[in-house]
This record gives sequence, C-alpha cells and structure tokens, in this order.
Amino acid sequence: MSRLADQQKDFPQWYLDVIAEADLAENADVKGCIIFKPYGYAIWEAIQRDLDARIKAHGVQNAYFPLLIPESILAKEINHIEGFAPECAVVTHGGGKELTEKLYVRPTSETIIYSTFAKWIQSHRDLPLKINQWANIVRWEMRTRPFLRTLEFLWQEGHTAHATKADADAMAEKALQMYVDFDRETLAIPVMSGHKPDHDRFAGALYTLTTEALAKDGKAIQAGTSHNLGQGFSEAYDVSYLDEKGASQRPWMTSWGVSTRLIGTLIVVHGDNKGLRLPPNVAPLQVVIIPIYKTDAEKKAALDACKTLQTALGGLRVKLDDRDDKTPGFKFNEWEVKGVPLRIELGPKDIAAKQVMVVRRDTGEKKAVPLATLNEASAREVLNDIQKTLYEQAQQFLQENTRTAKNDDELIKLLEKHSGFVWAPWNGDVATAEAIKEKTKATIRLVKDGQALFAKAY
Amino acid sequence: MSRLADQQKDFPQWYLDVIAEADLAENADVKGCIIFKPYGYAIWEAIQRDLDARIKAHGVQNAYFPLLIPESILAKEINHIEGFAPECAVVTHGGGKELTEKLYVRPTSETIIYSTFAKWIQSHRDLPLKINQWANIVRWEMRTRPFLRTLEFLWQEGHTAHATKADADAMAEKALQMYVDFDRETLAIPVMSGHKPDHDRFAGALYTLTTEALAKDGKAIQAGTSHNLGQGFSEAYDVSYLDEKGASQRPWMTSWGVSTRLIGTLIVVHGDNKGLRLPPNVAPLQVVIIPIYKTDAEKKAALDACKTLQTALGGLRVKLDDRDDKTPGFKFNEWEVKGVPLRIELGPKDIAAKQVMVVRRDTGEKKAVPLATLNEASAREVLNDIQKTLYEQAQQFLQENTRTAKNDDELIKLLEKHSGFVWAPWNGDVATAEAIKEKTKATIRLVKDGQALFAKAY
Repeated sequence: MSRLADQQKDFPQWYLDVIAEADLAENADVKGCIIFKPYGYAIWEAIQRDLDARIKAHGVQNAYFPLLIPESILAKEINHIEGFAPECAVVTHGGGKELTEKLYVRPTSETIIYSTFAKWIQSHRDLPLKINQWANIVRWEMRTRPFLRTLEFLWQEGHTAHATKADADAMAEKALQMYVDFDRETLAIPVMSGHKPDHDRFAGALYTLTTEALAKDGKAIQAGTSHNLGQGFSEAYDVSYLDEKGASQRPWMTSWGVSTRLIGTLIVVHGDNKGLRLPPNVAPLQVVIIPIYKTDAEKKAALDACKTLQTALGGLRVKLDDRDDKTPGFKFNEWEVKGVPLRIELGPKDIAAKQVMVVRRDTGEKKAVPLATLNEASAREVLNDIQKTLYEQAQQFLQENTRTAKNDDELIKLLEKHSGFVWAPWNGDVATAEAIKEKTKATIRLVKDGQALFAKAY
Repeated sequence: MSRLADQQKDFPQWYLDVIAEADLAENADVKGCIIFKPYGYAIWEAIQRDLDARIKAHGVQNAYFPLLIPESILAKEINHIEGFAPECAVVTHGGGKELTEKLYVRPTSETIIYSTFAKWIQSHRDLPLKINQWANIVRWEMRTRPFLRTLEFLWQEGHTAHATKADADAMAEKALQMYVDFDRETLAIPVMSGHKPDHDRFAGALYTLTTEALAKDGKAIQAGTSHNLGQGFSEAYDVSYLDEKGASQRPWMTSWGVSTRLIGTLIVVHGDNKGLRLPPNVAPLQVVIIPIYKTDAEKKAALDACKTLQTALGGLRVKLDDRDDKTPGFKFNEWEVKGVPLRIELGPKDIAAKQVMVVRRDTGEKKAVPLATLNEASAREVLNDIQKTLYEQAQQFLQENTRTAKNDDELIKLLEKHSGFVWAPWNGDVATAEAIKEKTKATIRLVKDGQALFAKAY
C-alpha cells in the first residue's frame, strides 16, 4: 500500500520518502541544494507569516543586506572568519572579469550588518537597534539531507545592538523564548532549551542559546539558536556610541535565527508511517473535502454538497479535491501523506443521512458528523484540538525518551541502550565530552542548571 | 530648509538625496549593491503582500529554486547564455576547494526552472504549470543607481508552461495586465504597455511585453516585463508532454517579473521637492500623529488626545511620533520627506477647539477637522482620495508629456525639444531606431498598433 519505507525500520529512508511522496522538495543539480516545491514552500510561507509577526512584536524591523560580502569585511572578526570561511562559496569573477577582491556568498550576515551598524549607531539614543532579515544562505556542507542540512537554505537572522551586557543578555533570552513559544504554539513541537557548551558556541559569540527538538528516531535536532555576541563585533567593526555622559562605549550585539530546517523538524517530530502530519497552524491546507460518487447523478449531488460545505468553512484553508481521474482511495492516501489535519468525505449515503465522515490525521479517528453542525467555528475547534493533540503526543514522546544519569558510567550505558536525551552531570571539560562522543556518538546538546543534555544529533 | 537638491535643476541628485533623507537605502561595500534600510524594505514588503495575492489569484504557486546554477545548465539555451553570461557573478570555489564546474549566481531562473519542469511535466494534465518565486538576483551592472539598477536586486519571477501558443500568449498578456492593474491600483502609477521591439526582447524569448512609466524628469522607466518564451526552452531542456492523443509535444513557456526597481519608480513618479510621496496602499505608514506642546501639562494633554486618536484609527498603519528631543517642525519635515500620506497635528488649541489639523502630503492642503468626525472610516476615505489624486496627477503628467509625430523628422524635433514620450510610425527597421537613438538618445520603449513609443530611458 504505502510507498514509504517503514519509519521504525529505516528512518532515514522514510524521511526521504515522505519528502518525495508529499511533494515537498527534490534534489537540485548542484549537489546538496534542493528545490522547494510548492507544497513544501507553502509550509515555509506559513512559518514566515507567523514568525514575522512575532519578530515585529519585539520592535524588530526587517531590512535587507547584500548577498555578497567582500573578503576584507568577512575577515575582520578573526573567530568568525576561521569558523565560516572554509564553508563559503566564493565569487571570483563578475561581469566577465576576475575580481580584485574575492566576494563570499553570505554564510550568515553578522559581518556585513555590524560593519553597517558602525554608521547607524552614534548615540545611546540609537540603541537598542533591532534588525531582522529574511534571506538565503550558502554553506558548503558535505553531508547534506533535504531541509535538515542543505548547501543553500532560507532563514531569518535577527541582529541587535544594545548599550549594556544586561540588555544583550535579555534580548538573547527573549529571542530564545520567542522560538520556544513559536515551536510550541505554531509547530506543536516541544523543545529543550539552554546554553550550548562553550566548545560548541557560534564562531565569535560570548555564548549561544539553543532549542533542541527530539526526532522520532530519538535523535536531537537543533531548531533555533540565539547568541550574545558580546563586544567582539563592535571592536572588529569599530562600532561605538556616546553614552549619556558623552563617553564613547562599545555596544553589545546579539544574533538569532531559524531556518528551513524547521520544515525537516516538522517531518521528523510529527511524521508517522502514513507520512506527514502537519499542525493546523502551519498546514498549507487545513481541511480537504473529498466527494464520493459512482454515477453522474451522485457526482453532481456530492459536488454540490461539497461546495456548500466548502463555503461554510470559508475562513479556513480548505481544498475540495474534485479530480475526476483519481479514486477516493488514492486521494485519501495522498492527503494523508501530505499531512492535511482534517479530511471530510461526502457521498450519497452521507447526503441521505445529512452527515459527513470526518477523519483526523493526528489520531486516525473517523466519525460521522451531522452536516448541520459543521461550520467554520466547529471545524476550527477540531483543528485546535488536533494542534493540541500533536503537541501532547510529541511532548509525551520527549518525556518518555529523556532519561537522567548520575555519572558518566550510567550516562554511557543509557546512551548505548536507548536513543533520546540523557541529562547528566558534566564538569565542563571538553575532553570528557569528546570521550563520551567517541564511545556513544552522543554530544552535549545544551547545558542547564549545571547539568548537560546528551543525545545523538542531526 | 530642505536638504534635497532641487528636483527641476538636478533630478539625479534629488533622487539620491530623497533616498538618503527618507532613509530608504544606502550604498554597500560591494560597488553597485545597496542596503535596504527598514523604511525602504517596508515598501517592498507592502509591494510583496499586495502583488503576491494577485499572483496567487491567477492560480500560480510559489516555490523556490537554487541560487547557484551550474554552467552546463545555463549554457543549454544559446540565446539566453549569450545574453546573460557576461552579466553573471561566478562562483569558482566552494568549501575551500576549486570547483570542477563553475556555478553562476542566478541572473534570472529560466534555465534552472525549465530544466526542472522537464521532470514535472509528463502529461497534458500537468499543464498549465504556473510557478512563481520571490528571490534575489545578481547582474554585474556597471552603471548602477539605487533601486533602479543595482548589482543585486529582489524580485518575483513567474514561470509557466502551457499546451499551446495561444495559452502562452494569454498568460503573458494576463501577467502584463496584472502589472498594469497593480501599478495603477496599488502604486498609483499609470503606465504605457505594449510589445518591446524585436531587437530589445528578452534573451531567448519569442516576444517581450512591457510596462513603461514616466519619471518626473521625462525619462521612461521599464516597470515590469512579461515574455512568451515560445518553445526554445522546452527544446533546450527537453521538456515534453503527451497530449490527449498520446503524441509527444513541446510546451510553450512564459516568464514575467517585477523587482525592487518599483521602489525607484515610486520615487521618480510621485516625488516632489519636499521628498517622497507614497500612495497610501503601499505606504509603510499611512498616518503620522504629531503632538504639539510646550509645557508639561500641555504635553500630557496632547499625548493623551493623540493616543485616543491613534486607537480610533486602529486598522490603519499609524505612527504617533512622541519623540521628545525633536521639534514639531523637524518632525513635519521628516515625515514629509518620508512621504507619509496624512499628517495629523494635535496641540492645546486643537484640544480646546475639539479639532485636529490634518495635512495631506499629495496636495499640501491643511485643514481643521472636528475630532468627533475623525475615525478609521473617515481617515480611510481621505487616504483613498490621496491614492486617487496621486494617480490623477501622474496620469496628467503622462498625458502632458506624451506627444505624437507623423514622421522621423518630427519625431527627432520633438525628442530634441521635449522630454517624455513620443509616438511615431516605425518601419520595424533596427537601423532607423539606432539612428534616432544616435541623434536623440531616445529608444523605442514599446510598439503598439503599428506605432512605436520613443523616449530617453532609465
């Protein structure tokens, strides 16, 4: 029946199969790049709509900075260039000529944005300065996987400047909390959050905060990060402001971002053996209506009833699948693979009984609902319940797969025996983390309240 | 007073001054690239919101294709590569190594999209296929001007495939009409539309349709184009479909796009000696409220009244400019330069008289309005009238600066004497067009009903 690999037996293949069968993306000619097909891109548009409003609610303004960064600009912050230069695509020719200076396709935009902030920031009155951009990014990744790690990806990157470390700390925390809320409320994904260990922080950052989700194969997946960049970029790009007493000061920067990796995260957190399961808040289609008929007369009656129903569901994102060359069974399967939260079936028997069959993608529950009671408000209630249920299921999975170890021996045993997260004490020593990674392939995903959270990760 | 060059005396400098003073953009480190500052980018966001809905209403779906195009793919359509390769930025290194094949930063995406359509199109049932993408584009322009011609720009590019030439003709026309309507209804810009002469069509196209606006200095500005690409790309990328009889056929393609050049077009069509004038439908801020006060008591009363008013205008894009370190005069000037359609002033005398002063940016008209009558609906009426007036002013300017010549001699005299458009008969001979360009710098902007429209152009 299903053209998907079994999720329990071959998770990596199941993941690729879902992407292909749900028509989300395909590989491009440049290795490691993907083409975002309309259904996959529509998920990104839904993410953008929701997250953009949250970002703006923090007083952040969108702007757009150039794709190409001169080598001299990129090179100014030494930790940063050492971290990113090896991953960059480099433009050496333009307009038919060799360039006098190499241009890097942005691997992230701290350098070009903070070199511009040097012009924008003069006085304490210019602070805080809060900018966000939606952009494409190129990083020369060797081992790629659609959405989760691609050579080019789409993201938003917030960049802010503040008068004090405390203000930058607060902004980095607020951005992290915004992601945690967005993950929970919009993507129905529970996440762990905390500090990255120092050896895994962003190149050039004072510290990095992270949100980590848990895929159904028990691997961690970094879903979003927020960095307090300290004053390093201010120094590198000579950004300064006059404080209220007229003294020159260096601002403190933060940056934070999430990417099209979130689409991959949705797949690996919510997907099942029938395919994708999309939370209603981010689903391109929330409801699909499928007419059931054999004769021409039945067809007319079913389509008429379906159209009336579609109108009644007006404000929701509804598709009436009236294709004549596909069977209802084919359609059920297709929309299940594509993860549409709610399916409504409507045929002659239903019309006679003044009802419809309603099928939930989250639980598979199928039940007859009187037509008279089905409208936008009642459907929205069911969608809200699906949103909630998907979150609860993911939350339960996360809890069941989060364990605690008292010491390194226990930690290693748990990591060898189970997938998922393990909390353990950690002395802050990189060598210890390396030794545990050597034995178990698990890394420290984050540190919180003196404990480290270990897991194998994407 | 004004820090802008005089529009009549030095239009190019006035243009740059408006961009700087209205805080729309600034030059980036890479020559020819600009940084879209928040206020400038917000105009682009407003354009995107409106146009995206119009595009989707045509049954077009958004998708996203890679930034980097392998040379072998770009080279397959010979007219296209000859037109675009000299303008390309070329990536030769990635991940620290020299690449075995050069990658071109997309100068437009026909090649990568149609090479993908070869996989997506198999049957007549797959047609029409209508895709759009919002993306960044790089073309190595030598003579750049912010928004109007930049090395990197943002745009949307629609790409469609159809079973027949007639279907492709209809789509190319519909896209053009969509732009004409959008220009008129949203940007308040009247445009001329018609065919580009053959010698000026898009590289690889059967023909190109264009919309041309008229800047206040009398120069034409190409605002959007739509191409019937014929079957050239289908052949180059081996795209074919089985028709209803089972015979293999080549689809016909169209492509069409508008870019951040539209922001420049807004400036040169509507701007005046006080700065930008933004049509309300695309203005990031539609109304600015400015409190007037001297004493603390006046300040409190004015701010309270302003806040009440802001609430009453709820659904509109309203800013209350409550900065304490700027004078009302400074604020008036700033928001005029930024082109906010409606300014409301509110001070102690107004409070006493239960009124506000309302100033329109389109006409400069200032009048007292009773506070009790000012609400979202009444303000929206004024905004609609401003939208209409800006269009009418631009339409009148277009008409006054469009002349007709009976022959080449008259044409040359008119072009030498006036700026603006001149209609003239044209025999279709490129040499004639070249000779006229040589003498007058004017080119054929479009051809319609056997007449050619000449103008100097951006």
